[in-house]
Amino acid sequence: MKIKIEEAKRKDIKSIVELGKEMADFHQRVDDYYVSGNEAENSFKKRLGEILSERGAKVLIAKAKNRILAYGIAFIEKPKTYIKPKKIGHLTDLYVREKYRKKGIGRQMFNKFLEWFKTYSIKHIELSVDAKNKIAIAAYKKYGFFEYKKRMRLDL
Amino acid sequence: MKIKIEEAKRKDIKSIVELGKEMADFHQRVDDYYVSGNEAENSFKKRLGEILSERGAKVLIAKAKNRILAYGIAFIEKPKTYIKPKKIGHLTDLYVREKYRKKGIGRQMFNKFLEWFKTYSIKHIELSVDAKNKIAIAAYKKYGFFEYKKRMRLDL
Repeated sequence: MKIKIEEAKRKDIKSIVELGKEMADFHQRVDDYYVSGNEAENSFKKRLGEILSERGAKVLIAKAKNRILAYGIAFIEKPKTYIKPKKIGHLTDLYVREKYRKKGIGRQMFNKFLEWFKTYSIKHIELSVDAKNKIAIAAYKKYGFFEYKKRMRLDL
Repeated sequence: MKIKIEEAKRKDIKSIVELGKEMADFHQRVDDYYVSGNEAENSFKKRLGEILSERGAKVLIAKAKNRILAYGIAFIEKPKTYIKPKKIGHLTDLYVREKYRKKGIGRQMFNKFLEWFKTYSIKHIELSVDAKNKIAIAAYKKYGFFEYKKRMRLDL
């Protein structure tokens, strides 16, 4: 299967939102705290439209035979003042359609983001992942990420 | 030792910033990614001044014999759209001077924040903690928090 990684365009919004909905539904099955279904779809669609015309943002898709199998979103960010770097890379989304996992698509996409981050002289990349999402955590560790903070929650 | 938990005022800024510097120095020893020393002090001082006049923000201090032993900062926040609640409580700082730990001061402060959160009908409280800060993680678990996301980082 020939995979092509490319920048997302406005015409890809519909397909990406479909994938985003799959990801939201996965999260919602794991933890009822997350939104899913139409609510997730609508807010993601709106956000994606904005991101596509944002500077310092990048949306990538993986395509095979004209079908979108994965998408990813990353930003160049000015972090809070309690850390040293004046800018960091932030990977907010990286989702590969379930059937197409374990084929290195995520890795290929990540490498493209890495190239992009390097053009901004980024030295640190951050991401958040659900603590129950063992597969994603294992993948990110393979890419060289380590856990440095925990996000904790109390439900009253 | 008689401990009093009260709201911080402008005149407390100097003492709170001292404690904040202690906390920043602790973090910096754990992970060189964090700022410390004068840089941490200056940015915290500036931020604290702003917070003290912010609506939906609360700064508490614990005092004994007119000395500040602990401080905490919390906010009422409108979270990102991918979670269900329309508002959450966010505890950003909770620091007890080293010598005064294990006396329940953190717990007393947390209970005060809890009362405040409840006046806003908050159902979910979030916080971030360094993954290496075992003592804080254990304390937050005792208060009922659980880890729900991991923040991961890649240093290039």
